[in-house]
Amino acid sequence: MNFIEKLTSAAQKNRSLLCVGLDPNLDLMPDNIGIFHFNKAIIDATSDLVCAYKPNLAFYEALGSEGLDALKQTVEYIPDGIPVIGDAKRGDIGNTAKAYAKAIFVYFNFDATTVSPYLGFDSIEPFIQYSDRGVFILCRTSNAGAVDFQSLHCEVEPDKRPLFEVVALKAREWNIHGNIGLVVGATYPEELRLIRQSHPDMPLLIPGIGAQGGDLASTVRYGVNAQGERAIISSSRQIMYASRGKDFAQAARQAASELRDQINSYLR
Amino acid sequence: MNFIEKLTSAAQKNRSLLCVGLDPNLDLMPDNIGIFHFNKAIIDATSDLVCAYKPNLAFYEALGSEGLDALKQTVEYIPDGIPVIGDAKRGDIGNTAKAYAKAIFVYFNFDATTVSPYLGFDSIEPFIQYSDRGVFILCRTSNAGAVDFQSLHCEVEPDKRPLFEVVALKAREWNIHGNIGLVVGATYPEELRLIRQSHPDMPLLIPGIGAQGGDLASTVRYGVNAQGERAIISSSRQIMYASRGKDFAQAARQAASELRDQINSYLR
Repeated sequence: MNFIEKLTSAAQKNRSLLCVGLDPNLDLMPDNIGIFHFNKAIIDATSDLVCAYKPNLAFYEALGSEGLDALKQTVEYIPDGIPVIGDAKRGDIGNTAKAYAKAIFVYFNFDATTVSPYLGFDSIEPFIQYSDRGVFILCRTSNAGAVDFQSLHCEVEPDKRPLFEVVALKAREWNIHGNIGLVVGATYPEELRLIRQSHPDMPLLIPGIGAQGGDLASTVRYGVNAQGERAIISSSRQIMYASRGKDFAQAARQAASELRDQINSYLR
Repeated sequence: MNFIEKLTSAAQKNRSLLCVGLDPNLDLMPDNIGIFHFNKAIIDATSDLVCAYKPNLAFYEALGSEGLDALKQTVEYIPDGIPVIGDAKRGDIGNTAKAYAKAIFVYFNFDATTVSPYLGFDSIEPFIQYSDRGVFILCRTSNAGAVDFQSLHCEVEPDKRPLFEVVALKAREWNIHGNIGLVVGATYPEELRLIRQSHPDMPLLIPGIGAQGGDLASTVRYGVNAQGERAIISSSRQIMYASRGKDFAQAARQAASELRDQINSYLR
């Protein structure tokens, strides 16, 4: 089963487009619980409510080898039917990208990852060659700085387009294995609408709801394809740290359940 | 001592603009030597010949926690006077970039790092806030795919410029702590010349000589500032794997010594 099939199957089984971001923050967790045990409790409480999990590697790397061991354990623990997206945003020259792809898809065994487009095709090719895995190329990111370069109008014959649209067009051209998706932030709904319009079937990984302020109704309406699928709506803090007390897992379940249902309410 | 001072001091002491890339490749090392011990031998053999070392994190991550432990040991082992650039090319939204910066500058304790510009200012800010460390923003990378996006002509009032030039201009604007540099590949000498012309004092990290085919003479002539400094000319495979036999360290010393002298011969 390749990534898209696994994603679709999990989304259908759990009737969910919700992806829970597993981003450890020691300041927001119960004392001394341990990252893996915290993640395990969150996973146990939410695995029937999500279409995917998405740990961001930064938060594990910041904790050194202990953090990375917890990440590996977490990926192994997530039930088989639910895809795990390693949010790593890697991007390097071909030979180096090959090593990164090995780290992501072999050592950690993620089902999918995120990559940065700045270095062009040969930085992405080693990832897409793992044809059963998914590769989400950063297109329009959810942060304020997204406008610095992604909004620049670029000359692409016969006209001009903002850089993030050029990236999306290239992503389609490069999608020979059918395993490329795009990252488009919920904080830019108009751009999300445009990208979905031009790329009706590409999986979109959509961060930026919740803490970052993206509007959920337009995220769902603009993000899904004609079948109401292929949008992965990611939330991290809102779920993981719904409560900072001992009831954190139960509170995470409650928050995930509500968010899933709210997402579904915006689908026709 | 901040990064620039440390770099300048090492370059002057060793009369060298050569940076040795420490990129482990088990297939090219003597059997069972262990990554740290291999790196240690290379460092012992070359530390009076270089201005910096530059491990690329990808090659360590591909080997899992064992690789990352060897990386940490390697950074600790490098003599105090020689700056270590963690080539990581990270780039993520502000809150996440903060965690990456912590991994790079606190956990690994690198003197400098490389970052990707695609997400804009708030993805770079958490790195430059470590004002005693160096931050090299990817500008014109050394690979073939560099042309896919970096060459696009972008509208920036009052004219048009290729994306990599826009990145360089933004880097200068963001350089409030004086710790930003640029990555410019030796494989694009004309672009290197242009960037140095417009940014006379910015430190340039220049990969792409050796295996990647960049011409050394133009790299040196175009890369240095008016004082013949602030170019960090990086070579990895050509030094580390100069010999695949037991004499690898001696061969690395020989290769590094020749390359350093060759670089110096192109300085006026």
